Amino acid sequence: MEKLLRKCQIRNQLVRECMAECLGVYVLILFGCGSAAQVTTSHEKNGHYLSINLGFAFGVTFGIFVSRGVSGAHLNPAVSLSLCVLGRHPWTKLPFYVFFQVVGAFLAAATVGLQYYDAIQAYGGGELTVTGPTATAGIFSTYPADYLSTWGGVVDQVIGTAALLLCVLALGDQRNTSLPDGLQPVLVGALVMVIGVAMGSNCGYALNPARDFGPRLFTYIAGWGADVFSAGGGWWWVPIVAPCVGALLGTLIYELMVEVHHPPIVESQTSSQEAKNGVELEGVEPDGEKPTEVKS
Amino acid sequence: MEKLLRKCQIRNQLVRECMAECLGVYVLILFGCGSAAQVTTSHEKNGHYLSINLGFAFGVTFGIFVSRGVSGAHLNPAVSLSLCVLGRHPWTKLPFYVFFQVVGAFLAAATVGLQYYDAIQAYGGGELTVTGPTATAGIFSTYPADYLSTWGGVVDQVIGTAALLLCVLALGDQRNTSLPDGLQPVLVGALVMVIGVAMGSNCGYALNPARDFGPRLFTYIAGWGADVFSAGGGWWWVPIVAPCVGALLGTLIYELMVEVHHPPIVESQTSSQEAKNGVELEGVEPDGEKPTEVKS
Amino acid sequence: MEKLLRKCQIRNQLVRECMAECLGVYVLILFGCGSAAQVTTSHEKNGHYLSINLGFAFGVTFGIFVSRGVSGAHLNPAVSLSLCVLGRHPWTKLPFYVFFQVVGAFLAAATVGLQYYDAIQAYGGGELTVTGPTATAGIFSTYPADYLSTWGGVVDQVIGTAALLLCVLALGDQRNTSLPDGLQPVLVGALVMVIGVAMGSNCGYALNPARDFGPRLFTYIAGWGADVFSAGGGWWWVPIVAPCVGALLGTLIYELMVEVHHPPIVESQTSSQEAKNGVELEGVEPDGEKPTEVKS
Amino acid sequence: MEKLLRKCQIRNQLVRECMAECLGVYVLILFGCGSAAQVTTSHEKNGHYLSINLGFAFGVTFGIFVSRGVSGAHLNPAVSLSLCVLGRHPWTKLPFYVFFQVVGAFLAAATVGLQYYDAIQAYGGGELTVTGPTATAGIFSTYPADYLSTWGGVVDQVIGTAALLLCVLALGDQRNTSLPDGLQPVLVGALVMVIGVAMGSNCGYALNPARDFGPRLFTYIAGWGADVFSAGGGWWWVPIVAPCVGALLGTLIYELMVEVHHPPIVESQTSSQEAKNGVELEGVEPDGEKPTEVKS
Repeated sequence: MEKLLRKCQIRNQLVRECMAECLGVYVLILFGCGSAAQVTTSHEKNGHYLSINLGFAFGVTFGIFVSRGVSGAHLNPAVSLSLCVLGRHPWTKLPFYVFFQVVGAFLAAATVGLQYYDAIQAYGGGELTVTGPTATAGIFSTYPADYLSTWGGVVDQVIGTAALLLCVLALGDQRNTSLPDGLQPVLVGALVMVIGVAMGSNCGYALNPARDFGPRLFTYIAGWGADVFSAGGGWWWVPIVAPCVGALLGTLIYELMVEVHHPPIVESQTSSQEAKNGVELEGVEPDGEKPTEVKS
Repeated sequence: MEKLLRKCQIRNQLVRECMAECLGVYVLILFGCGSAAQVTTSHEKNGHYLSINLGFAFGVTFGIFVSRGVSGAHLNPAVSLSLCVLGRHPWTKLPFYVFFQVVGAFLAAATVGLQYYDAIQAYGGGELTVTGPTATAGIFSTYPADYLSTWGGVVDQVIGTAALLLCVLALGDQRNTSLPDGLQPVLVGALVMVIGVAMGSNCGYALNPARDFGPRLFTYIAGWGADVFSAGGGWWWVPIVAPCVGALLGTLIYELMVEVHHPPIVESQTSSQEAKNGVELEGVEPDGEKPTEVKS
Repeated sequence: MEKLLRKCQIRNQLVRECMAECLGVYVLILFGCGSAAQVTTSHEKNGHYLSINLGFAFGVTFGIFVSRGVSGAHLNPAVSLSLCVLGRHPWTKLPFYVFFQVVGAFLAAATVGLQYYDAIQAYGGGELTVTGPTATAGIFSTYPADYLSTWGGVVDQVIGTAALLLCVLALGDQRNTSLPDGLQPVLVGALVMVIGVAMGSNCGYALNPARDFGPRLFTYIAGWGADVFSAGGGWWWVPIVAPCVGALLGTLIYELMVEVHHPPIVESQTSSQEAKNGVELEGVEPDGEKPTEVKS
Repeated sequence: MEKLLRKCQIRNQLVRECMAECLGVYVLILFGCGSAAQVTTSHEKNGHYLSINLGFAFGVTFGIFVSRGVSGAHLNPAVSLSLCVLGRHPWTKLPFYVFFQVVGAFLAAATVGLQYYDAIQAYGGGELTVTGPTATAGIFSTYPADYLSTWGGVVDQVIGTAALLLCVLALGDQRNTSLPDGLQPVLVGALVMVIGVAMGSNCGYALNPARDFGPRLFTYIAGWGADVFSAGGGWWWVPIVAPCVGALLGTLIYELMVEVHHPPIVESQTSSQEAKNGVELEGVEPDGEKPTEVKS
């Protein structure tokens, strides 16, 4: 078995990274949208809003664990973009990362659709609708609350994603708090949890173009139809554009208020710190890349 | 006292491992089915669906803590099977592990039945039924939702167990993320939590032949009768067969998409990694076996 | 200030340990009974049963953090007793520990009574009753459910405390899983959480003679009267006696099924392990005592 | 980009600390008041009281992560005051810290007000009221329950903040339990969680003058008017004064019952402990200050 598997080994670094990103986002959406499906189709009997927060939070955590050592676990086009802007990720890889992130989200949505096929049919009485009392499209993608203006939705997504990046960068800033490796995925999950608890009400805290667009594409194809793009006043572009703006804003705030001002590292300190990192991170990032920030 | 206990020492490695697996599954089911009993018999006053998720999650965590250093804490025949296929566990031990996992689950179900005897009698009005408004068999084993087809149930269990193994293998893959020892049992518990939150609605996320069959046997003997096998259209074989298929599928996906492609370890790196493992794991696995992946 | 405080320094080891146990149990009950008061007096608006589970769980965690380095954080007469039987704690200290554990619980109950004075008056309409629709004695001590027989209550408390000790000993067994120091208090809290989720329905999972008797004494004095001893068919002695029996049973099970059978440590391994412990635990147990198991 | 950012570098230590405190409190209030806004404006559909507990708990955790390495993450004037009294923080910095903590809270409240503008308008029918069925001022600041006397409120806040400081000092006392760096922010968050679960019912566990006064100022300016100061019988001064008293009381209790009595460190032990700290904390506190206790 072991030998058989060895034969399939792929050496190309970019292919490996794309597979890891794809699988990471797959896990994230599988648990995230799965929990939304469970809450919706059980009429809130087998879970509440908090369950959906837990589903996405742990989805992020395990999505990171699955992909971290290979691709750095961006799991989010807005995160990849920010890292490129900061110069911590090559621009040439950006389109590949984004594409496979969307593919992973699409496949996961399809898996949830398969797993909850009977339940969704029973819940909707055989109909797949985007709005109305038995709407099921909200299992897969985000839609705004009735009271929300488009502009209010943009502001919501910008603030939410800015908060996400601000805290993710703080978690990754070894000169602020040196986190034990292996705790970072858990804390990024907790961060997504609290964003869901504090900023989920208006329009479902997508924060991630791939997380929203991949599953939306699935619902479009799988029978919910063109309503998934027209509903909410043509809402679909907001969770794609606003998170990118918010991610850059959050990055800027953290850099300008904290990271930039760390005093220059004295020579001897550097080496001891490198030694420390060597002990802690060796084996985690075997591909020779610098550990990058993680997130969905 | 210490001396008295020493006299009972058993040196046989397999006997020790079987006792540990038995006790580990016992703890898992004691907390898991206990929480289901509490939610059911208190008419959801002292807990909700989330409590059952918590019960099984922490049940897994403490089941692993109880048995990990001795047997590697498989706690699940589907996990043992996958590890045998991967060549990380000897095939000859498989039947012993499986047998004692089922025994542990059976004994734990009996303990829960004893602890909640008064409560179950009061809830069911003295009747032990498998279906109907005061059914109590669901405390112990899983039954499908009304809307679920048998085929849908098989798909559900295959997907759920595949997700379980995929993430468990990622947690154990030191070249992806090197986890601090002692955090792994907590994270596997969290994994079972999120699977319950995201995939529990259809048929109760058994994911584990021993977890389902042991307690079912108990209910069969203890007064619920042959209904426990006939209910749900003869459902009982699904949580035995489907998790094994799912476990192999999940193993294959993780191996093919991530683990197989890790670059070969250069000599010097190996030794430093071994040194590191030596520091971290020494004392955890005193039996000379390689640390294997853990799970329920 | 620092100098002023130094003048109050006490050198006597036993006095220090008793103060630490007292403060540790104080914190445990302050958060535990506080959460019960919040759920009761807010008519379940500001919390549910799960909040009480969380209150006692984190109460245990922070009670351990407060006292661990000084007294080993038993926080529970049944735990102290088990450790004496195992030979890991001197019998001569037992009465002192137990007395100050009860004192800490009494003082914490008084603090909760003070903090929730207005709320309890408003909830009970000025009456302090042990039974009936506006009973408030259950905030402080445990009472059995209506359906529970005394014998069923004894069985419940024996099983619950056995589960507690079994898992606490596993967490403390460095040869099973070597836990990072500082994670143990969190995991013991999680253990109390899951016991509350799985075994709280029958009679409120006291598991601890001091946790139950101290607050009961407070309610007796503070105006609830002799009913606190006569209610539930003279229930009060069960959470004192049964946990002691259960603790010994759980200890026996873990010792006989796992710990006793660990192979003898080879000389060289011992020293390396001691070195490791030296690195990890130094500074935590500065009083020269062996780190003992912790728990409430 | 990196170079552009470098140009903005500020070398002044006090300015950096003030920015960090401001940003830390900003994150705390953004998540805390955000969760209150979500629960209120969704009519408890997208969250319950527990969500608010989670919001403030994780808010504290990430507020600490954001600021810890620079300012020590006090995030609370009452904490800064206690540390000054203990001689672990210079008195001259106190007014700067307090001012920027209030500024951070004010800005965060404004952000929440912006993000939930549509929702608050829809919930209140366009009116911004402090009392009544559609009151929304409670999203930002604390108000007492109807049954609570002012004196009862003072007692509540003193007890709550004393519990907070007592446990925070225990978490920071390396001679009691040596915590892995990076776990402390999580545990302080858990502490705020349990205080909210156990002591939130009477008057909303402010525990922090800045957390309460900054957002109150925002509501005063943003349209809720002078009612925010007159409501609850002129409640506003209680969450400013009582937490300071409580913080000093909790500090005194922990120092007198535990910390002061630690035996003097023998020379050799000191050096080994310093070596240990060197390994663990290096890189976390690059500014040459002693790690101080953290909290909101």
